[in-house]
Amino acid sequence: MTTPKRRFIEDLSDGENLDEVYLVGEKQLRANRQGNLYIQLQLRDRTGSIDARLWNAGENLFRSLHEGDFVQTRGKVQLFQGALQLVLNNLERIGCFLMDEAFLRNFSRAPAGIRNHHAFVGGLLEHVVNMLEAADRLLPLYPKLDRDLLLLGVFLHDIGKVRELSYDRVFGYTDEGQLVGHLVIGVEMLNEKAHQVSDLTGEPFPRDLLLRLQHMIVSHHGSYEFGSPKLPMTPEAIALHYLDNLDAKVHTFVRDIEEDRNSVTSWTPFSQSLQRRLFKGNQLPMTYDP
Amino acid sequence: MTTPKRRFIEDLSDGENLDEVYLVGEKQLRANRQGNLYIQLQLRDRTGSIDARLWNAGENLFRSLHEGDFVQTRGKVQLFQGALQLVLNNLERIGCFLMDEAFLRNFSRAPAGIRNHHAFVGGLLEHVVNMLEAADRLLPLYPKLDRDLLLLGVFLHDIGKVRELSYDRVFGYTDEGQLVGHLVIGVEMLNEKAHQVSDLTGEPFPRDLLLRLQHMIVSHHGSYEFGSPKLPMTPEAIALHYLDNLDAKVHTFVRDIEEDRNSVTSWTPFSQSLQRRLFKGNQLPMTYDP
Amino acid sequence: MTTPKRRFIEDLSDGENLDEVYLVGEKQLRANRQGNLYIQLQLRDRTGSIDARLWNAGENLFRSLHEGDFVQTRGKVQLFQGALQLVLNNLERIGCFLMDEAFLRNFSRAPAGIRNHHAFVGGLLEHVVNMLEAADRLLPLYPKLDRDLLLLGVFLHDIGKVRELSYDRVFGYTDEGQLVGHLVIGVEMLNEKAHQVSDLTGEPFPRDLLLRLQHMIVSHHGSYEFGSPKLPMTPEAIALHYLDNLDAKVHTFVRDIEEDRNSVTSWTPFSQSLQRRLFKGNQLPMTYDP
Amino acid sequence: MTTPKRRFIEDLSDGENLDEVYLVGEKQLRANRQGNLYIQLQLRDRTGSIDARLWNAGENLFRSLHEGDFVQTRGKVQLFQGALQLVLNNLERIGCFLMDEAFLRNFSRAPAGIRNHHAFVGGLLEHVVNMLEAADRLLPLYPKLDRDLLLLGVFLHDIGKVRELSYDRVFGYTDEGQLVGHLVIGVEMLNEKAHQVSDLTGEPFPRDLLLRLQHMIVSHHGSYEFGSPKLPMTPEAIALHYLDNLDAKVHTFVRDIEEDRNSVTSWTPFSQSLQRRLFKGNQLPMTYDP
Amino acid sequence: MTTPKRRFIEDLSDGENLDEVYLVGEKQLRANRQGNLYIQLQLRDRTGSIDARLWNAGENLFRSLHEGDFVQTRGKVQLFQGALQLVLNNLERIGCFLMDEAFLRNFSRAPAGIRNHHAFVGGLLEHVVNMLEAADRLLPLYPKLDRDLLLLGVFLHDIGKVRELSYDRVFGYTDEGQLVGHLVIGVEMLNEKAHQVSDLTGEPFPRDLLLRLQHMIVSHHGSYEFGSPKLPMTPEAIALHYLDNLDAKVHTFVRDIEEDRNSVTSWTPFSQSLQRRLFKGNQLPMTYDP
Amino acid sequence: MTTPKRRFIEDLSDGENLDEVYLVGEKQLRANRQGNLYIQLQLRDRTGSIDARLWNAGENLFRSLHEGDFVQTRGKVQLFQGALQLVLNNLERIGCFLMDEAFLRNFSRAPAGIRNHHAFVGGLLEHVVNMLEAADRLLPLYPKLDRDLLLLGVFLHDIGKVRELSYDRVFGYTDEGQLVGHLVIGVEMLNEKAHQVSDLTGEPFPRDLLLRLQHMIVSHHGSYEFGSPKLPMTPEAIALHYLDNLDAKVHTFVRDIEEDRNSVTSWTPFSQSLQRRLFKGNQLPMTYDP
Repeated sequence: MTTPKRRFIEDLSDGENLDEVYLVGEKQLRANRQGNLYIQLQLRDRTGSIDARLWNAGENLFRSLHEGDFVQTRGKVQLFQGALQLVLNNLERIGCFLMDEAFLRNFSRAPAGIRNHHAFVGGLLEHVVNMLEAADRLLPLYPKLDRDLLLLGVFLHDIGKVRELSYDRVFGYTDEGQLVGHLVIGVEMLNEKAHQVSDLTGEPFPRDLLLRLQHMIVSHHGSYEFGSPKLPMTPEAIALHYLDNLDAKVHTFVRDIEEDRNSVTSWTPFSQSLQRRLFKGNQLPMTYDP
Repeated sequence: MTTPKRRFIEDLSDGENLDEVYLVGEKQLRANRQGNLYIQLQLRDRTGSIDARLWNAGENLFRSLHEGDFVQTRGKVQLFQGALQLVLNNLERIGCFLMDEAFLRNFSRAPAGIRNHHAFVGGLLEHVVNMLEAADRLLPLYPKLDRDLLLLGVFLHDIGKVRELSYDRVFGYTDEGQLVGHLVIGVEMLNEKAHQVSDLTGEPFPRDLLLRLQHMIVSHHGSYEFGSPKLPMTPEAIALHYLDNLDAKVHTFVRDIEEDRNSVTSWTPFSQSLQRRLFKGNQLPMTYDP
Repeated sequence: MTTPKRRFIEDLSDGENLDEVYLVGEKQLRANRQGNLYIQLQLRDRTGSIDARLWNAGENLFRSLHEGDFVQTRGKVQLFQGALQLVLNNLERIGCFLMDEAFLRNFSRAPAGIRNHHAFVGGLLEHVVNMLEAADRLLPLYPKLDRDLLLLGVFLHDIGKVRELSYDRVFGYTDEGQLVGHLVIGVEMLNEKAHQVSDLTGEPFPRDLLLRLQHMIVSHHGSYEFGSPKLPMTPEAIALHYLDNLDAKVHTFVRDIEEDRNSVTSWTPFSQSLQRRLFKGNQLPMTYDP
Repeated sequence: MTTPKRRFIEDLSDGENLDEVYLVGEKQLRANRQGNLYIQLQLRDRTGSIDARLWNAGENLFRSLHEGDFVQTRGKVQLFQGALQLVLNNLERIGCFLMDEAFLRNFSRAPAGIRNHHAFVGGLLEHVVNMLEAADRLLPLYPKLDRDLLLLGVFLHDIGKVRELSYDRVFGYTDEGQLVGHLVIGVEMLNEKAHQVSDLTGEPFPRDLLLRLQHMIVSHHGSYEFGSPKLPMTPEAIALHYLDNLDAKVHTFVRDIEEDRNSVTSWTPFSQSLQRRLFKGNQLPMTYDP
Repeated sequence: MTTPKRRFIEDLSDGENLDEVYLVGEKQLRANRQGNLYIQLQLRDRTGSIDARLWNAGENLFRSLHEGDFVQTRGKVQLFQGALQLVLNNLERIGCFLMDEAFLRNFSRAPAGIRNHHAFVGGLLEHVVNMLEAADRLLPLYPKLDRDLLLLGVFLHDIGKVRELSYDRVFGYTDEGQLVGHLVIGVEMLNEKAHQVSDLTGEPFPRDLLLRLQHMIVSHHGSYEFGSPKLPMTPEAIALHYLDNLDAKVHTFVRDIEEDRNSVTSWTPFSQSLQRRLFKGNQLPMTYDP
Repeated sequence: MTTPKRRFIEDLSDGENLDEVYLVGEKQLRANRQGNLYIQLQLRDRTGSIDARLWNAGENLFRSLHEGDFVQTRGKVQLFQGALQLVLNNLERIGCFLMDEAFLRNFSRAPAGIRNHHAFVGGLLEHVVNMLEAADRLLPLYPKLDRDLLLLGVFLHDIGKVRELSYDRVFGYTDEGQLVGHLVIGVEMLNEKAHQVSDLTGEPFPRDLLLRLQHMIVSHHGSYEFGSPKLPMTPEAIALHYLDNLDAKVHTFVRDIEEDRNSVTSWTPFSQSLQRRLFKGNQLPMTYDP
């Protein structure tokens, strides 16, 4: 709950080393006297702006930067011609959630569950990446869906699991996970990030967007009986719910069938969580082209 | 329930006009003396084979034909050099269900429902085509799913609706629709087609495939309470269930929101079938790129 | 799925041995010169009719035959006075389902379940016969019920179990049984028989009757949660549902109580399938005449 | 709750008029000097016995009486040859519940419900009589069922309805009916009668029988959701449950179909209490003899 | 079912020893010649009244008596100045249910359940006494609740458990408990007591009060699924339901947490009856005063 | 989402007017030269401490203050003898949530619902105050419950309703209320306050306490079907659930009965939200003292 204090631009002082996130302003690709390319760009937050310079930068990096992007910057503050400027060692374009390295580390190690689908280290990331890919492929078929909203919702829907589950040694639930659950934890994490973004930009996080994202997180289980306190009530929320189940259930079915080594019967044992047995079939090759 | 009698190859006689389905055997693209291309091919069913000729045929059509394809053939039987041959006016490659023109006509006119999603003439076809496209895009992400099986299941899952619903003037349910329902009707239609295919080829329809297709039809509602007598128990059946709901629900949500002309409230009226109100939002443009 | 090819009347030829089903037309009981009685009757199918003769036949058999009955006939085709006729060795009046000996053999061997009621070889037959008897006794009390329809429904409601269950050695479910279930299998079997009848008589099977029978099969579990895709919607369907449960549950209760040899407690162990314990009572003789 | 005080035999005195229930002891059919037949019999209760005489009685009545029967007696107590005797005007054999004329009057006037099945004056009686007849016919098929117990249970299962419902003018629920319900009222009425029988005979009412009857009353709705606080746990209780539903539902289905005068559609309107529409069919005569 | 015969006042005779319940009429505190105090009071039942005298009685007892109270009296009937009077050894003020010593003995020994809350000898009494205290404290906050009615309801709601459970050696259910249940048994016990009160006072038990009490007993489980045949429909009935659950569930939670000696995890094992695990927490002292 | 910037003690400067919250440190009651009492006390936050003085203060106020209390202070910063001090106009002891005047204003105006219980301006406050009083009275009966935790939980359980509902003119739901719901909103509000407290005190908010409070908010509806994503899993959470329902339901029952002016029937109309009718009774005075 205690994030290290942010270094606002107005507080920077000569000589300090910096590892902080800012917004990109104007940018230029220049050559120095030796003809080496470097990037000159303006960095901003709500307290002001500062010039920054990245030596020996390539054109690709330059082109990938756009005004308004969040960038993770590492470098040193220096007084130059009477003004502070930032000499960068490193510059990385990021989404807002990626600002938080601890989160990233957890997100890429957490399983998606302790028993059901994607129950392995990295399972959550695999689940989310697959869903992002699936959403990306389906979105052209549903032009009325808000693309950015759905992709953000997919990315966020299970983030609470990094705190709901413990996965250092044995997989299990944390106390917070059992008492509060990943839906409510996820909303809390989203709110914190929205505060950070608002803090950084000096503008309130778009309220309508925040509501729709919170809604997608709390409703993505789809019904009360599966622990959602709200039913999906937007097109993107209902799409998220089915995409999530599609990915999770196909993964579970395939895994249960593949891991069953019993060749006497063509059925898996009764699965308590699925409330059914699965059909492994006999000889599988059964192509047929009508 | 009475389909017109099939003309088997062994029963053909000189001079008769024919509009029938056969299997493609060997094929050749030839030129006649004037240099015009024509297709020479063998047609088969379980009773025998016959040579056929289609004058003035293009290379494209030739290339699209493969041994084992079902083709709808129209033409005349003629005695030629002591043997019967078929002079074709028309040749069309089809899938097995497309053999039945009456079905095709209904399938392309039926709605997918009388109130809920895709409740308009042609709605069923739109629903199925969209699902086929969606499945096609998602299948590479789920390599363990049997592609042909899933696509066939998508195509078949709602075929029973062409008899469950009446859509000549007012949309409604047929007696058969109410008493038996499109799941069981669909299985019946599948069985009839399987019989026809078996009749034509002289080989039994693959039993494992038939079972899996029947299962996908009866289980695609996903749970007992929604009228499926069986829960999905194969990976393809569970995928079908979620793809179906994804398409149907997104369609319904978008339609209900768009058709609501009330601008006083940002919510649709309570929907009995969805058991919720939907969020129309205020001013919609809310793009955001993290 | 492949039934041996039927011998239609128009295809019969002199000298062939026959074991086939036909419809009864006109009939006469005659005496030959020695004064022995024989039956002279016309047999029909949709392709034509043929005269038949059964020597040494009794009056009882003669009276039991009515125009339109299905009869299993065994005998030889002979040319007699310029026309083919059938000399019968055997003549048996049957219902349509009894045409199929393989079915009959299975139907009389199948259990009604693998764990619950009538779970023994022949259990299905016992269950159905008992229900037929029960329906027969109750029908006079409910004169608005269609007698023939209810009796047919009782006979048909569980026929799918001959394919849903395997009972050669150990009782179990077949793949088809688990994937499709005896309700849908039963409708398929009914449809096949309706086709056969229609084939034989040359007239379509009465559509309204077929719908009502299909409906009784699919709805006889009475509610969605017990796997019926349709609720009973005709008087005969609701009567069938309760008759079925009455017979099955009384059988189960009595069996569970009788098979419990534990005399320490007056209660059976908790039954998972019944979700209750049963009261065995203490000293049973407790007659009382108010 | 206040039943008029019973006249015990030991309290009878010369000259009093009597309308009371006693048990039959020894009986004789005699002729007086004019040759007219009269019945001489001993009447008993737990306080003693008294001789009684019914002039001009027929042989049929005599034969119908058995030792231990309950009889409703009307007549006058007289001193005769130094002892009290009873000169009867009327003698009627009854079951224990028939002792209570007020009950009988209500029982034969009450409907079985205010909206659903048998919702008319006398409907409850018709329902019970039909069920008694149905049970009588089915019992030979289920020889392990205790005949007397099932018949008593059928008779008693709905007796609480004579107090649950009000049916003097408009049909409705009484306060007691809504607050307590006919299941609990029925048990209370059974208990009162059991007390009366015990009072009369001087012996405790058989405890096991009483428990089983109470159980049948409280469990006859078959499940918690339909308001039974206990599930049926004896063979007779489960049989009662299905017999009750069979009779009630067939009655409701037939009535709803017959009362629907709308000839435009072959379906009744949606019934809230049945949660379905019913199929009226088209042209009903559809006899078929397989 | 057989309670020993009550001694009505009109039947008392000189010299008999008495242990019976009567109603208090007029009372006086007097001093005899030696100046010792004694109580002179009138005792009544529906058959008449009798003077009674308790020697050496204190002022406290005198003041505790009010006209209309039920008192348990022990003493001897004596002829005094031409009339019968009662010389008392003992006089105890009671409530109606306390008249029955056998009940009292059971009520103070019964557990409230065999597994769940208050499952120990005396548990039922503890549960009821705690609920009485809770109701007493809450009633001032809900002035529209009928105080007497709620307290009576609390006292009565579980009385059926003294017969539902057996607790002489091992805890278990009686046959009556399983077949009928403590809700219906409780109503039966209430009815018996109401009869006794009515018998004693000669006036009918207030009908409205009886209905409301019966209703509170049958509805106190709050919903059909937990075995109440009626939902709570009065303010006192709904209050009783929640008070009962509050006491029972808090008791269960605290007990399950305290009895769990496993210190490895901060969670109890999964409880089948609660369908959840409980949080034991880590180090408990966590006071906080906002 | 944007709270005005807090004035930390280290940032205060001479002459500024202040309306801020601090923690109480040491305190003294002193008299000035005129003998008038004033309070001298130390105020603290995580950045430092400052002396403050409240002239003309009474002994009562002095005694009500304790070290560690949160106090709302209004006054002016002045340089006095080389150090800043605070001359107070007003000093008010508060709980942490009361720091936020906007919240307080809403909390005291919000209804508890738009249709059900306490649906009037100020209804939420009345509901919470009544529950606090109820909890206070019951806590001595349940000594194992953590008093502070339960009272805090009661106070917090519905705070989300100040944002879930709109109550300026017509009562209704806000978009946030429908999309996210008062459970999740409530957790968000709790989290914000916890951050503020932590910010003020410089110490992390106790994690275990925060979890238990979050859990009480999300679980207080008691079951999934009523929209709680978690079941109550601590003694205080289950107690809160029943206290909440007790208060809400008794309020609803009494209101529905009192507001029903129909004197023809003793029952209210069917209530959709309660799924029952309520018993108004006939003539209510029905006291009875057993």
